[in-house]
Amino acid sequence: MLTGKHVAVIGGDARQLEVIRKLIELDAKISLIGFDQLDEGFVGATKVQLGQVEFTTVEAIVLPVSGTSLEGEVETIFSNEKIVLKEDHLKATPEHCIIFSGISNQYLKKLIQDTNRKLVELFERNDVAIYNSIPTMEGTLMMVIQNTDITIHQSNVVILGFGRVGMTVARAFHALGANVKVAALESDLLARIYEMGFQPIELSQLAKEVHNVDVCINTIPARVLTPTILSKMPTRAFIVDLASKPGGTDFRYAEKRGIKAMLAPGLPGIVAPKTAGQIIANVLSKLLLEDHNITEEEQL
Amino acid sequence: MLTGKHVAVIGGDARQLEVIRKLIELDAKISLIGFDQLDEGFVGATKVQLGQVEFTTVEAIVLPVSGTSLEGEVETIFSNEKIVLKEDHLKATPEHCIIFSGISNQYLKKLIQDTNRKLVELFERNDVAIYNSIPTMEGTLMMVIQNTDITIHQSNVVILGFGRVGMTVARAFHALGANVKVAALESDLLARIYEMGFQPIELSQLAKEVHNVDVCINTIPARVLTPTILSKMPTRAFIVDLASKPGGTDFRYAEKRGIKAMLAPGLPGIVAPKTAGQIIANVLSKLLLEDHNITEEEQL
Repeated sequence: MLTGKHVAVIGGDARQLEVIRKLIELDAKISLIGFDQLDEGFVGATKVQLGQVEFTTVEAIVLPVSGTSLEGEVETIFSNEKIVLKEDHLKATPEHCIIFSGISNQYLKKLIQDTNRKLVELFERNDVAIYNSIPTMEGTLMMVIQNTDITIHQSNVVILGFGRVGMTVARAFHALGANVKVAALESDLLARIYEMGFQPIELSQLAKEVHNVDVCINTIPARVLTPTILSKMPTRAFIVDLASKPGGTDFRYAEKRGIKAMLAPGLPGIVAPKTAGQIIANVLSKLLLEDHNITEEEQL
Repeated sequence: MLTGKHVAVIGGDARQLEVIRKLIELDAKISLIGFDQLDEGFVGATKVQLGQVEFTTVEAIVLPVSGTSLEGEVETIFSNEKIVLKEDHLKATPEHCIIFSGISNQYLKKLIQDTNRKLVELFERNDVAIYNSIPTMEGTLMMVIQNTDITIHQSNVVILGFGRVGMTVARAFHALGANVKVAALESDLLARIYEMGFQPIELSQLAKEVHNVDVCINTIPARVLTPTILSKMPTRAFIVDLASKPGGTDFRYAEKRGIKAMLAPGLPGIVAPKTAGQIIANVLSKLLLEDHNITEEEQL
């Protein structure tokens, strides 16, 4: 339990509600900043303005997935208040205060450095990325079903990359009856691709393997779908690019060739906000509990 | 091959294009009625008006999935011409002429009876129903991903019926990580449900098994989702009713209780028109080839 631990939740979207719910369950003391328009009443959580937070007792600050803007602003869908996280806020916290965010940027990193606090970027964690690959996979299924006139069953699917997302996507399309090829660079990944019953492709040989592709799903954050590769694909091919912006596809060339290609980042928050929120809530609360126990032991 | 066989294709939608493509591949002589606005050129098929068809040589008539209206009108998306199939047309055909349709109605049945021709209702066939269950399942996945805020993975899914569609849907949801229960009446189906690793529910015990359902998919063409059952479901449940109209759900009561329920017939033509067309084309051409070979043998 987190009894007595003061957590400030600042801004966010529907996913943050799952975090708040979990923190209440664990009996934390919760200050909600940027939730004034939220109808749902959370018994055990107090809505306050940023200026009114007692930062001297705040042991954890929870920012939304996006963290802050480059000007320090924290997005929220539950308030019109402009919320800017500043050095003064962090400096007022106890030294062991931890800041949780999905991702970070120059602003947040500098703030953390200048105040000498600890930052946890949840979306950089492997466990979060693997859990998130599930709603990402389901969102990808949805996009493919919507954007093709054939079934996934018996279609020719080429997946680029076999990391945290690639493996999940490959398994799902295979389970639904697609013919799945997976391209990777590393020999151990190619071995695992083979072991799991997919057809392995060495990334350098990709151009030879796309002539009959119906669906291509990229998870590699590098320019892998070059004009050379795209020119070998049939124009009926549909590309879903799951790599973070700007993706791994030459979208200009794909469009010119008449191949439909879509960049699809952030699928978990779109197709399954509740599950996506629970993923964050579970990992976050586990980290808070571990930290809480250590702090308590130190105090004994 | 169907060399020399005269087939009249009357009306239809994108699915019929796959049928035409297949018939051309098999070298049939093809008359297209209701396709005057179709841009795609089909070498080996002639566009004609219904009045100009030489019915005396037509050995097979292919109607769209919907057959005719109760007034005999044949739907087409490729023409503004009003096409009404009449007794005179069928009477002019050779006696062994076969009429293919997806489904039939009073009008078509009477026409067939009065002219003593043979009717094949493709959508009544088990093979067609099983092939069609694939795009139906994919359409169901799409609807569930779109209409819930959780992932299919780890969700509680109850499927009603374990026939041609039920088995396909159960396998897909199970493969994607859902907790799948399947309700059926017959003991052999309950045994198969168990064997395949799903949790069997005797249909009479359904009320006891829906308290934590996230997604309920009905395939039974009878009023199974009664107010008694619906009142036991959580209001967050999402219902997809795949049974033919009017479905098996008390939609009025579901709405009153705040449960989202959708009747979703005809998913194959919506989510995968090309595959749906190929399914019809494959079964139709197989039947035509069998019939053609018999006719040729008889003539020898």
